[in-house]
Amino acid sequence: MERADGRKPSELRPVRITPHVLEYAEGSCLIECGRTRVLCAASVEDRQPPFLRGTESGWVTAEYAMLPRSTHTRTPREVERGRPGGRTQEIQRLIGRSLRAVVDLELIGPRTITIDCDVLQADGGTRTASITGGYVALALAIRKLAGGGSFASAVLRGQVAAVSVGIVGGVPLLDLCYEEDVQADVDFNVVMTDAGSFVEVQGTAERKPFSREELETLLDLASDGIRQLIEAQREALAQA
Amino acid sequence: MERADGRKPSELRPVRITPHVLEYAEGSCLIECGRTRVLCAASVEDRQPPFLRGTESGWVTAEYAMLPRSTHTRTPREVERGRPGGRTQEIQRLIGRSLRAVVDLELIGPRTITIDCDVLQADGGTRTASITGGYVALALAIRKLAGGGSFASAVLRGQVAAVSVGIVGGVPLLDLCYEEDVQADVDFNVVMTDAGSFVEVQGTAERKPFSREELETLLDLASDGIRQLIEAQREALAQA
Amino acid sequence: MERADGRKPSELRPVRITPHVLEYAEGSCLIECGRTRVLCAASVEDRQPPFLRGTESGWVTAEYAMLPRSTHTRTPREVERGRPGGRTQEIQRLIGRSLRAVVDLELIGPRTITIDCDVLQADGGTRTASITGGYVALALAIRKLAGGGSFASAVLRGQVAAVSVGIVGGVPLLDLCYEEDVQADVDFNVVMTDAGSFVEVQGTAERKPFSREELETLLDLASDGIRQLIEAQREALAQA
Amino acid sequence: MERADGRKPSELRPVRITPHVLEYAEGSCLIECGRTRVLCAASVEDRQPPFLRGTESGWVTAEYAMLPRSTHTRTPREVERGRPGGRTQEIQRLIGRSLRAVVDLELIGPRTITIDCDVLQADGGTRTASITGGYVALALAIRKLAGGGSFASAVLRGQVAAVSVGIVGGVPLLDLCYEEDVQADVDFNVVMTDAGSFVEVQGTAERKPFSREELETLLDLASDGIRQLIEAQREALAQA
Amino acid sequence: MERADGRKPSELRPVRITPHVLEYAEGSCLIECGRTRVLCAASVEDRQPPFLRGTESGWVTAEYAMLPRSTHTRTPREVERGRPGGRTQEIQRLIGRSLRAVVDLELIGPRTITIDCDVLQADGGTRTASITGGYVALALAIRKLAGGGSFASAVLRGQVAAVSVGIVGGVPLLDLCYEEDVQADVDFNVVMTDAGSFVEVQGTAERKPFSREELETLLDLASDGIRQLIEAQREALAQA
Amino acid sequence: MERADGRKPSELRPVRITPHVLEYAEGSCLIECGRTRVLCAASVEDRQPPFLRGTESGWVTAEYAMLPRSTHTRTPREVERGRPGGRTQEIQRLIGRSLRAVVDLELIGPRTITIDCDVLQADGGTRTASITGGYVALALAIRKLAGGGSFASAVLRGQVAAVSVGIVGGVPLLDLCYEEDVQADVDFNVVMTDAGSFVEVQGTAERKPFSREELETLLDLASDGIRQLIEAQREALAQA
Repeated sequence: MERADGRKPSELRPVRITPHVLEYAEGSCLIECGRTRVLCAASVEDRQPPFLRGTESGWVTAEYAMLPRSTHTRTPREVERGRPGGRTQEIQRLIGRSLRAVVDLELIGPRTITIDCDVLQADGGTRTASITGGYVALALAIRKLAGGGSFASAVLRGQVAAVSVGIVGGVPLLDLCYEEDVQADVDFNVVMTDAGSFVEVQGTAERKPFSREELETLLDLASDGIRQLIEAQREALAQA
Repeated sequence: MERADGRKPSELRPVRITPHVLEYAEGSCLIECGRTRVLCAASVEDRQPPFLRGTESGWVTAEYAMLPRSTHTRTPREVERGRPGGRTQEIQRLIGRSLRAVVDLELIGPRTITIDCDVLQADGGTRTASITGGYVALALAIRKLAGGGSFASAVLRGQVAAVSVGIVGGVPLLDLCYEEDVQADVDFNVVMTDAGSFVEVQGTAERKPFSREELETLLDLASDGIRQLIEAQREALAQA
Repeated sequence: MERADGRKPSELRPVRITPHVLEYAEGSCLIECGRTRVLCAASVEDRQPPFLRGTESGWVTAEYAMLPRSTHTRTPREVERGRPGGRTQEIQRLIGRSLRAVVDLELIGPRTITIDCDVLQADGGTRTASITGGYVALALAIRKLAGGGSFASAVLRGQVAAVSVGIVGGVPLLDLCYEEDVQADVDFNVVMTDAGSFVEVQGTAERKPFSREELETLLDLASDGIRQLIEAQREALAQA
Repeated sequence: MERADGRKPSELRPVRITPHVLEYAEGSCLIECGRTRVLCAASVEDRQPPFLRGTESGWVTAEYAMLPRSTHTRTPREVERGRPGGRTQEIQRLIGRSLRAVVDLELIGPRTITIDCDVLQADGGTRTASITGGYVALALAIRKLAGGGSFASAVLRGQVAAVSVGIVGGVPLLDLCYEEDVQADVDFNVVMTDAGSFVEVQGTAERKPFSREELETLLDLASDGIRQLIEAQREALAQA
Repeated sequence: MERADGRKPSELRPVRITPHVLEYAEGSCLIECGRTRVLCAASVEDRQPPFLRGTESGWVTAEYAMLPRSTHTRTPREVERGRPGGRTQEIQRLIGRSLRAVVDLELIGPRTITIDCDVLQADGGTRTASITGGYVALALAIRKLAGGGSFASAVLRGQVAAVSVGIVGGVPLLDLCYEEDVQADVDFNVVMTDAGSFVEVQGTAERKPFSREELETLLDLASDGIRQLIEAQREALAQA
Repeated sequence: MERADGRKPSELRPVRITPHVLEYAEGSCLIECGRTRVLCAASVEDRQPPFLRGTESGWVTAEYAMLPRSTHTRTPREVERGRPGGRTQEIQRLIGRSLRAVVDLELIGPRTITIDCDVLQADGGTRTASITGGYVALALAIRKLAGGGSFASAVLRGQVAAVSVGIVGGVPLLDLCYEEDVQADVDFNVVMTDAGSFVEVQGTAERKPFSREELETLLDLASDGIRQLIEAQREALAQA
């Protein structure tokens, strides 16, 4: 089977992570996965969410939005409807949980780090790109907060990255672009650490239920892809 | 390890499904999984959602809410905040997708079937109980719509049920109650059909990432539990 | 005249009050008046509403909602419209005022007791059933709070119950069911104490104005009905 | 007992109704009851509310608002809270029902007449003043619509007016001003026609329940007051 | 060219400012410019907006609304849409900025003065009438706050008034009425002090861009008109 | 006087306009004015706004938003507050009016062109940069719609660009950066066409009123600046 852009089933799209694209944010990067582009900005604020009052702990949270013309046809802004839609909230909860999985929240102190993921262009995989890029913005902010050195590595207990996999026309594929995503029978978003552990596995039968064997194949594909994304994060952070 | 309620790690809570508890709904049941109780009502309406205009197809959707005092301490109504919260929207999307997986939407014609899942009492596993009970309400409504017989079985391509599994204190457990849920390191919601295929797999590392082996063990536990729930659905529908 | 369900004009529908139906609420009951069923839950919280700050007094308030499929055809949830409708707000204000009429708010201390009235099935008279059942949930919560005994009777200065009456086809009727309610020319909701005093009298000419004589007849009917409801409350509380 | 403004218990405040105060509205008046001033405007629009589609009938509805500085201290605008409060909705439903009681909705054809009641200054009794003044605005609009003559009298089947009564310090009083209203033990709003029939009776025990005898006395007081208001309406309309 | 109401191009509509029209507000007036009528009320409250916390300074702000039937056909209330529209917010920001330009905010102390401008009837120029009338309400409130005398004149550093000008059919006109406003090619709102300085100049090409020369002519017209409005304010305040 | 970034009073910040930065939008550019960066996207849709129904005319509208971390400290998303703020609405109305001034709306047919201006980084002048960049995105979209050639030039009757000017510390300055903007005594936004005519002049005395002479000086400065921005647009469009 030939993929729309000529890739092999187990091939990632070209990934590019450009750090420090914003001058005011404590950490930032632009992540590009093929045509998908997400601007990730980390903001450190000296305030705790209400449910942590009285503790010394901090919090990491995420917000996600698509610019109206990131999509093939214009998507109305959610502010016009008066509230973030269900999909948006689901995605920002996922990004937040994924990033918190590698942060020692007590070590960051009574602060909130917000990772804003704004999709400039959307060609599938925006939520997984947000996690992968969001990690880089977060790491840069923590590096700045910690003044570099060993403290920063204590705060960040590992790397985290994410990728989508799916079954399209009976073939398991890594890193679906939009055109593949809409045709997929099964769609997984997988979030893993650099130690090879899982943080999230979200698999959905869009058209028909999937077997245990198919699940296993997809997790193998995702593990391979994430290993490469972890490497891309490492390079971006090394150069930053 | 002793579970809070004396169950074995691989044991479901007692499940009871009482059909026809509402006199006006086209289909309804009360599902009780231990102390968790969800009232499920299926409503058939002769209208299509906007995105199906111009087709002959129908739709199945779900809404979910917790009564304010379903919980240990009172939870404010979401209507007072002016919108369903992110968790609620995520759950109702999950229930809807899960039920649609076993329905032939074209056969139900230009109709919308809404499954309302209202949690009367919450002791963990409300979203999975909603799917399991929601299926029974849906099946009763389709039976009524189809006038029974072979048409109903054509519309419903199978059964679907769901359960939670998780790792608590290092031990994989089936069907978490609330007390276990808040302590879980890993939390999965699994939705499967009577044919043993997966509709949804949502696994989250609440505290620490999980290994591939742990994932496999949890899916085995879930498969066993769902087989029993499918049987409970069958009995409830046989008596109804 | 024959009523839809064979009752005499001055006859209440069968009323059944089942206490302690919820395991977490401080007080609860299910009240059934014919086919109308309302789940009433009392929650005690150690907080004062803002307007009582600086006093030692407490508050009793109520919330009311109908489950979407409590009605003959499905009624959309108010949360989807972003706010409780005018009718809902009017009803919850009425329930709250009625219950406060028999509570010594200073004796309950700096607390808020919220009575949630959720209509599981609606066949007319849901607001009056909410008051009658809400009183039972409230009394159980106060009994628990007071540790029983004489303090509880000091806090609760009496019983309160409510019923609807109306004129249908020229005939004054007690306790209208839905079918009668929609045809009524005049519709009253009456709230009274066990001492036979009035807490609320809300009479509305739905179709044509009513005379002073008709008003007197309706109040007589209501007084009789409420006396029976007061007795039903007493029995339910005695057994609880 | 001496009333705040020297009135006798059964005395109305001075009432003044000035018709035609707005140049664009189909009907309008300013009603002053003591210091309470309400601007009433009737708008006729060639549209039906959705629930009348397919009929030839029209509708009469009302909206009510208080200007922020109609009150002793400034009251925030409800638009800032994003929705009309419960009290506002309750009042506008009451005004609408009261006015519809004297209109033959079929004769006004497929139109909506909206009565806007905007309180310029509030010293108690704003909802009853809105009904009394709203009737005058409505009658002027119908007169204009009907081109005067017998048709107008067919459309309007009678006059309607309203007043508050209450028990303050044990004394039944007619037409409460704000200072009396906040001290009242019992508070009634009564709406009647020129034929002496009741359209609405809303009695509330604000502090202590009231007896049947007290109810009777209050209804007598109200009937007397409304008779005078009906006369004031008639004079205003005669001069207009 | 003949104007709709027979005025000369450089002629203001008759202006009338009636002070003290509300009994509770700290300052108030009714301003009438032709058929445009705006009720202006100043409220003094002992609270600071959040951004002034920790300072000794006060604030002056404004709110603006049109009564539904101030317009030729009924305009729905903004509260029904759940939020003030863009035009409303733009206008209330303009009124607030304009009035603050002549107030020494530090001298008023930790208070907020809110100027409510409610349009009773709208025939063009409602925002400029709100500024001109709002100034009078503000001055009366400050006079009352200051106990009259020299302190009041220290707080108010000058007078401020506003007028609209525009080009209609090629002719520059002062003080547009509604009919002229909708036909204008260019529309200016100009706010000036009694010292002849500008506070705001907002010029918009509604139909075609305007030249520097046209701008100069319009500013000359506006200056003349504002001089007369400043005089009308002075007279109203002298008599109050 | 030395400006923060060493510019002369009458000097623009470096401006860079990069066309075609988005792959899906009908027209797009990134405009950078110093550190201010705005992403402008033009979307052409085959629908008319409701108020044009029944005509052959089209519409041009604009939306504006700031990314949360475009600012020195994080600004919460407006969607979280449930509505675009007053400042946002004022700005998007300004951008829309400005762009419509150079478009023949009848020639674009029954379409809506929406210009989305999303501020990636904010250092003052974001609304004027949005107009200047928005024009380029619009021109590219019209060029594509028209298939190039003479029709496109008929649709676009000219160019439009905007700049801010102000008085800081007594000195009139062109193109204020954020630091200058917050200190300005007077702040103007000026929108002009390539023919040297004005589309909008919005001048505000932030701290003290300004004289006619100051106004003249500021308009001269703005005219010079806009001439250069018009040239930058022309170059960007020539290369695109």
